[in-house]
Amino acid sequence: MRLTQGIHRAAQLYPKRPALVSAEGIVSWIEFEQRVARLAGVFQSLGLQPGDRVAMLSHNSPRYVEFYFAALWAGGVILTINTRWAMAEKTHCLNDAQAKILLVGAAFTDDIEDLKEHCPSLQSVIYADTTSATMAAGLLDYEQALANTAPVADANRSGEDLAALFYTGGTTGKAKGVMLSHNNFMANSMNAIVNLGLSSDSIHLHVSPLFHLAGGSRLFTLTAVGGTHAVIPSFNADNFLDAIERFRVTATVVVPTMLNTLLQHPTINDYDVSSLRLLTYGASPMPEALMRGAMAKFPDIAFLQSYGMTELSPVATMLLPKYHCFEGPNAGRIRSAGQAVLNADIAVVDETGKAQPQGVVGEVCVRGPMVMQGYWRQPELTKQVVRDGWMHTGDAGYLDEEGFLFLSDRIKDMIISGGENVYSTAVENVLYRHEAVLECAIIGIPDEKWGEAVHAIVVLKEAAIATEQELISHCRATLAGYECPKTVAIISGELPKSGVGKILKAELRKPFWPQ
Amino acid sequence: MRLTQGIHRAAQLYPKRPALVSAEGIVSWIEFEQRVARLAGVFQSLGLQPGDRVAMLSHNSPRYVEFYFAALWAGGVILTINTRWAMAEKTHCLNDAQAKILLVGAAFTDDIEDLKEHCPSLQSVIYADTTSATMAAGLLDYEQALANTAPVADANRSGEDLAALFYTGGTTGKAKGVMLSHNNFMANSMNAIVNLGLSSDSIHLHVSPLFHLAGGSRLFTLTAVGGTHAVIPSFNADNFLDAIERFRVTATVVVPTMLNTLLQHPTINDYDVSSLRLLTYGASPMPEALMRGAMAKFPDIAFLQSYGMTELSPVATMLLPKYHCFEGPNAGRIRSAGQAVLNADIAVVDETGKAQPQGVVGEVCVRGPMVMQGYWRQPELTKQVVRDGWMHTGDAGYLDEEGFLFLSDRIKDMIISGGENVYSTAVENVLYRHEAVLECAIIGIPDEKWGEAVHAIVVLKEAAIATEQELISHCRATLAGYECPKTVAIISGELPKSGVGKILKAELRKPFWPQ
Repeated sequence: MRLTQGIHRAAQLYPKRPALVSAEGIVSWIEFEQRVARLAGVFQSLGLQPGDRVAMLSHNSPRYVEFYFAALWAGGVILTINTRWAMAEKTHCLNDAQAKILLVGAAFTDDIEDLKEHCPSLQSVIYADTTSATMAAGLLDYEQALANTAPVADANRSGEDLAALFYTGGTTGKAKGVMLSHNNFMANSMNAIVNLGLSSDSIHLHVSPLFHLAGGSRLFTLTAVGGTHAVIPSFNADNFLDAIERFRVTATVVVPTMLNTLLQHPTINDYDVSSLRLLTYGASPMPEALMRGAMAKFPDIAFLQSYGMTELSPVATMLLPKYHCFEGPNAGRIRSAGQAVLNADIAVVDETGKAQPQGVVGEVCVRGPMVMQGYWRQPELTKQVVRDGWMHTGDAGYLDEEGFLFLSDRIKDMIISGGENVYSTAVENVLYRHEAVLECAIIGIPDEKWGEAVHAIVVLKEAAIATEQELISHCRATLAGYECPKTVAIISGELPKSGVGKILKAELRKPFWPQ
Repeated sequence: MRLTQGIHRAAQLYPKRPALVSAEGIVSWIEFEQRVARLAGVFQSLGLQPGDRVAMLSHNSPRYVEFYFAALWAGGVILTINTRWAMAEKTHCLNDAQAKILLVGAAFTDDIEDLKEHCPSLQSVIYADTTSATMAAGLLDYEQALANTAPVADANRSGEDLAALFYTGGTTGKAKGVMLSHNNFMANSMNAIVNLGLSSDSIHLHVSPLFHLAGGSRLFTLTAVGGTHAVIPSFNADNFLDAIERFRVTATVVVPTMLNTLLQHPTINDYDVSSLRLLTYGASPMPEALMRGAMAKFPDIAFLQSYGMTELSPVATMLLPKYHCFEGPNAGRIRSAGQAVLNADIAVVDETGKAQPQGVVGEVCVRGPMVMQGYWRQPELTKQVVRDGWMHTGDAGYLDEEGFLFLSDRIKDMIISGGENVYSTAVENVLYRHEAVLECAIIGIPDEKWGEAVHAIVVLKEAAIATEQELISHCRATLAGYECPKTVAIISGELPKSGVGKILKAELRKPFWPQ
């Protein structure tokens, strides 16, 4: 299977239908095919050889979508740069991957000189934005290059050929490149198509950053069915709602914080979002109160949760719309991450690798065609996490009697206090119920008596007041003694987060532990 | 991807739901997993090594379904024997494939001695039917063997590993073994799941013979989604209708002759077929009158056509339910074979391999993950039909402006008369409209003046009368002169047909051409 195939098919079956819609206009499938083939020609004329990495540093745009497919069409490998990274992280990624060509959006032109200086493998930089007076001198212009280049034939890489490198794991140590093949992504697309009911009639809004797979993998899925890609640069409530109304969006993917922002948004009722039939979410757990609010606000929209990680292309389980309920025989399943997707073996194992009985917590492992090929040039690290074909996710959880996966915690975030396991998320869930708490994180800190002690770091809501003792007492009312925080630090500002909004517990732990 | 994965997944997610229903009872997914693992143990205890072929000669039965998956689970390769073959064809297939183990249904026990004698590779024969007094002496009994054998671990063959050999092409020369991999079948299943809307709630009736892929491929599809397999031994109208009512069947696949029989069946209204939502058909063209009759009879059932061949695992295009109409913007598309399935490149080429413009007839070629690995031990023959990844189907047809494939004829059935192409099916369609014609075939026969002359072979309906001249005049009213039969042979009995009801034109041509 090959990820460019959907373009050929859509150009043959739906030549005049929109492939790509944005504030810049509409591109039909037959035009999209042409533009991708020309951009691939540009990459080849810049010296791209089969398997070479082509990088993108930009907010979402129509060009980001074209970049994905042109990199593959030219015979190359997709490399996306997290826009929130510091310069050192950007250069690490480009150097580690030895990227030859870089495309840069208007918001990141200030980075170009530094990147060129510190990334010797870079041979060409393309200014990938609408041409404007701000265009940096000496860069190739995207539209001009397309206009001046003849379309080339699809390189037809496929199957186990490397399709992309996604850098991840920056929460601890240096980011590593996750190697994903054409087959990896097609396995994921198969599940997205089946469970999201996507088709050539779907109009999918890409609002999550395309440098991350939660958003990026949908590019492959929508292209495979010949649906329509709708793109906006980044999330804010008005742009998002306006795009749904304007493009008649039928499906999209969000992270929980986006949904929270939407529900709080004062003018949410000013938009016609009646076209939206499916809202999928993932990347971090959805608080139940937020889910209830969203379902009440959008009673006609189906919600679907995906769980996975970049190393799983990225989805391993899905909680289907029918399990988004609070009553009846399926009540309680909304607290799970759903069931195995097609072709996914899911197992929960103990430290020795032995399968745990139903209901017993262990490490979640996944096997199947969605498991990455490995970490780029890190065979030892790969062997640590992929053993006998099983990806060891580092997540703790258990399976119920019908294969619903209930996640407890990241294993490395689990605290062992006096020999008892404490799941940090369980404690956080209780803290979140306190009316003064805006955000919080539970970590283990060294303790002479207990080995680890439970420590809470809390940010209060604006103008809210709560004492350390009050928060501990609040926890005592629900949790076992060993689960309650022994200490609470109330801080101002916000907790440190990764690009997709995950709280960086490693950062929080750092001051307490020897390096 | 691996074809046994769906069993593990269904046993985890839907352990108590029915995997297999038949007149013999209900087998749950957790039981099915156990039975398959035990039957695989039987095969291994009989000496099966990875990649060895295990053969089945039987009408459809629950054991046929278990055989498919146990052969794979044990690490073997599925080999099905066409029940309609003569002894020489059966032995050719078993010997060519060097099958080690053979399972035989009750209807074929008379063959066993001959097969043992003529197939030296056969080491074991299992009597695969409900135990009864007719069980031949010296054979392993299926249920006893299962009861006496411990379940073994899934061999986990996957991806490009060979999954099955399907012998085909008996219409000309000896049948050849089509090599199909796990990935081949999963590519097909993906399309069946998406376009047929199959899920764990589907109950699919397997009535088409499981030795043929039109029926057999659905075993993989239903298992992948964890739906329910319903099985009856073979088709007759009452058994079929009874099974739909009894098992609450939601989907099935038929060939046109079955549908014809159903519509003519006097007691069709005595059955409750309200559970049936989808009827897929294929293997040979559906006459429009029959389609109209079926749609009028079953207004609530969606119809879906598949086109392909064994070498394509087996589907390349589908005509979706929405195109089964006779009015509106899609009128006329019902005469096509539909559009490319996901991941399928479809092209129409001339003799030199050059792509034909839209609307121009050429040979239909297909590329993608559904294309077979090749013909078993026939690399030269494989090279003739699979070139640069493109399977050359031998079918003539054209594509319209939205990729709908209109089939004209088998290329070898096309007649060239006085330099003009005559498509035999076009002439047959006209003849079928004559009220006296029950069945007919158009072939080319040697002609000194025109190279080939159009010759019709016709079977009349019971008690109907028509002369050669009358039939030729009937054709003249619609067809060009060069398309009309020059001669007509009216014969009694029926035209020679293959196992799936295709008329064997090679047989009909034989008397006219030098061998």
